[in-house]
Amino acid sequence: MTTPLHSAKGMIAILFLTALFHCQPTAAQETKKMIRLAKIIVDSSQLEAYNSALKTQMNAAIQQEPGVLTYYAVAEKTAPNHITILEIYADKIAYQSHIKTAHFLRYKETVKNMVTSLVLVDVNLIGAVSKPD
Amino acid sequence: MTTPLHSAKGMIAILFLTALFHCQPTAAQETKKMIRLAKIIVDSSQLEAYNSALKTQMNAAIQQEPGVLTYYAVAEKTAPNHITILEIYADKIAYQSHIKTAHFLRYKETVKNMVTSLVLVDVNLIGAVSKPD
Repeated sequence: MTTPLHSAKGMIAILFLTALFHCQPTAAQETKKMIRLAKIIVDSSQLEAYNSALKTQMNAAIQQEPGVLTYYAVAEKTAPNHITILEIYADKIAYQSHIKTAHFLRYKETVKNMVTSLVLVDVNLIGAVSKPD
Repeated sequence: MTTPLHSAKGMIAILFLTALFHCQPTAAQETKKMIRLAKIIVDSSQLEAYNSALKTQMNAAIQQEPGVLTYYAVAEKTAPNHITILEIYADKIAYQSHIKTAHFLRYKETVKNMVTSLVLVDVNLIGAVSKPD
């Protein structure tokens, strides 16, 4: 027999599972993703300003653009001006849209005299695993 | 008045929020993390076997080791045997434990004649943002 309490317990289970698994991407979505490594060398004297501009750009993109999925920006411990960014977009269209946004154009303008080397490497995902955040 | 149904609704809300936010790391946990880029070149003729061994290792580590937090393994589109792995461990102790596990030692043994170059670069996180999985 279904009582309101039984229904609520069912709803608990459904919502809990939904929260845990609601956005597991399909294989087709995985294949469409555009993934890139940006390898950047920054003028050391401007590193603090660069990192600030980078973080501002990343935060704006993840908040405002549905197709911007992930950024990891890391700096070499022994050469903090040598930066690598792992960038993941939903697809190429999302990337093309991204580079026309106001926040990205502002970032490019801000850092144009800070970046001494920029190498963009398109990559394919071999695998990604992560503990739940 | 609290009825069983009201309690159940409260529980729904608590479990839903718990599932969404239960593992947000603290600033201290972020600082302790050990992050590394592994830059690997693989003998092209053994690439399929290497990628398989890598995925087996990553999956075992994330499932069995609480201190293994994230792996992203990517291959250059124009040179698929040039591989970069972003590795995130909870701290140095977790990493030291990781390299003694059976699955890691099995991986190292399996790939010892497949890897032609290995460069390990310790890095600090500038920033990471991600859409919920």
